[in-house]
Amino acid sequence: MSSQDVQRPICIIGLGLIGGSLLRDLAGYNHHVFGYNHSTSAARTAVKQGFDVNDDLPAVLNRAEVEEALIVIAVPMTAVGSVLDAIQEYAPSCSITDVVSVKTPVHQQVCDRGMEGRYVGGHPMAGTSKSGWDHSQTGLFRHAAWGITYDYAADYEARGEKVPRKWIETFTDVVRMTQMVHAEAVPVRVANHDAAVARISHLPHIFAETLATVGDNGGILAQSLAAGSFKDATRVAGTRPNLVRQMCETNAPALVEALDEALELLRGAREKLAAPEPSIAELADAGYRARTRIEARSGARKESVSPVKISSRPVLRLHPGGPKWVAQLRQTESLGGRIEIF
Amino acid sequence: MSSQDVQRPICIIGLGLIGGSLLRDLAGYNHHVFGYNHSTSAARTAVKQGFDVNDDLPAVLNRAEVEEALIVIAVPMTAVGSVLDAIQEYAPSCSITDVVSVKTPVHQQVCDRGMEGRYVGGHPMAGTSKSGWDHSQTGLFRHAAWGITYDYAADYEARGEKVPRKWIETFTDVVRMTQMVHAEAVPVRVANHDAAVARISHLPHIFAETLATVGDNGGILAQSLAAGSFKDATRVAGTRPNLVRQMCETNAPALVEALDEALELLRGAREKLAAPEPSIAELADAGYRARTRIEARSGARKESVSPVKISSRPVLRLHPGGPKWVAQLRQTESLGGRIEIF
Repeated sequence: MSSQDVQRPICIIGLGLIGGSLLRDLAGYNHHVFGYNHSTSAARTAVKQGFDVNDDLPAVLNRAEVEEALIVIAVPMTAVGSVLDAIQEYAPSCSITDVVSVKTPVHQQVCDRGMEGRYVGGHPMAGTSKSGWDHSQTGLFRHAAWGITYDYAADYEARGEKVPRKWIETFTDVVRMTQMVHAEAVPVRVANHDAAVARISHLPHIFAETLATVGDNGGILAQSLAAGSFKDATRVAGTRPNLVRQMCETNAPALVEALDEALELLRGAREKLAAPEPSIAELADAGYRARTRIEARSGARKESVSPVKISSRPVLRLHPGGPKWVAQLRQTESLGGRIEIF
Repeated sequence: MSSQDVQRPICIIGLGLIGGSLLRDLAGYNHHVFGYNHSTSAARTAVKQGFDVNDDLPAVLNRAEVEEALIVIAVPMTAVGSVLDAIQEYAPSCSITDVVSVKTPVHQQVCDRGMEGRYVGGHPMAGTSKSGWDHSQTGLFRHAAWGITYDYAADYEARGEKVPRKWIETFTDVVRMTQMVHAEAVPVRVANHDAAVARISHLPHIFAETLATVGDNGGILAQSLAAGSFKDATRVAGTRPNLVRQMCETNAPALVEALDEALELLRGAREKLAAPEPSIAELADAGYRARTRIEARSGARKESVSPVKISSRPVLRLHPGGPKWVAQLRQTESLGGRIEIF
């Protein structure tokens, strides 16, 4: 264990695609990690594969409390409340993070229970259209952005008060955990996170479902003619509907805003296409410029000729709790930057 | 040259991504193929690379007439009319096909000039977001659907008349040409083609432009958080705007219909998301079912364990001009099937 690693065990509650992949990476790193899966058969499979996994939630949380572990909540949104209740009961002093894809409702449930002093929200921007322990894999988080929330610290700063030590330690360990799995920690406040993912993750799901449906309505001839671009565009429609529902429905306000913006563009394009001289010049130009900017910004991550992958995200080396550190987080957030802790 | 190959030279007018890739494949097959490019420098580049290419359109068409070549029109839609005029003048008896992505306006221009007796429309469902000779490549059409129109024959059949020999020969050679580049010939009438590609090609372009714009509006933080799924979903927005415009604007009536269908789904999802109990159950379920069907139908093409790629499109072995052959084309079209000619 290096001095830059998390200096306590990590306990993962929920071993689906994300929780399972995190467990695999941390175990591969030889970090002390254990976990809970509600599925007895999946837990058995993981044990047979040599992982320290159990299907008894109170026992796992008791152990987390005794070993002073950092708890990672990796269950679907609908189960977060009951897991928080169990943590209150069995692991009342443990630090907590989560990997749920929408941050407002998790943050709300944490605040409802007065647990915000030991909670730092997280969201790894990684995944596949598959789910469950059987699809978990090593290396899933490499180079991925991992959003880390800091509203609690921002509130203290706004009041001119010092952020409590316990929260700073939790924040530090969450960032260090993401570093151990080679992700890039992007500081982001809850509302900004949810507004951003509505645009770049949830709206694409809505679009993919819509495209798949309209394509399918074209019948077997349309599908026979469909090429790779159609399959790419509808790929995420292959995600289990209940996962899509959880993401989109729990982020409804931000998603409605992004969707309204999209609907306005589409209605405008529709009117111009239905005109006597059809034109989509405006949308085609705007989309091309936007795509070119997106490509340029992510270029260094994907297409660098350097043998070492270089991140295009500006980096801030942070000393949590140091002078103006919360202001530095704000600045990094505004640049879409990442933080490193040494 | 095998007896199943085209038994005459092929002359390609326009050597961009599609025309250039076709020239490369046919030349690689040792077929007699030559072409025209309006760009003198691109034509010179092709000549240096050993291809039989010229930038003098009358000369190239004269040669096609003398050698009784099959002419492939591979220019943008806006240039089709002037190429047809030049063919009328310099190659008045040659058979003609094209590779333009929308069939109604090409068909109309052909009919306006009374050239339909020697024209068979085509559209290879292959491409990349790049364009021009420099991006043309071998193997682009392998396993791709290549729509081939037969409205002329269907009209003769509807009148109870025999399809003229010249047209049958043209049709046969166009199908054979697609076989030579390992594409799969899918018979399709003009209106059905345009309705299908509106759904599976042009609407995805509109959606990608819209998503890229809405994502870009989220600023640098949203883009920093964007993962692979967003880049996949916006990939085709990287296509040159004038190419997107030509496809979408020349297929405006069919595209408006597909877009209206999509807008209705999106508006419905928006209302249900904005409700007190947000739900996108309906869209998520429909999209998932649609995507699963799409995947199942293309499964054998992409994920077959067989070392020989097997097409999932049903195949009809056709004898053009034989008994009920036009009825067989109709039936194959209704199944999204492919035809082979021996």
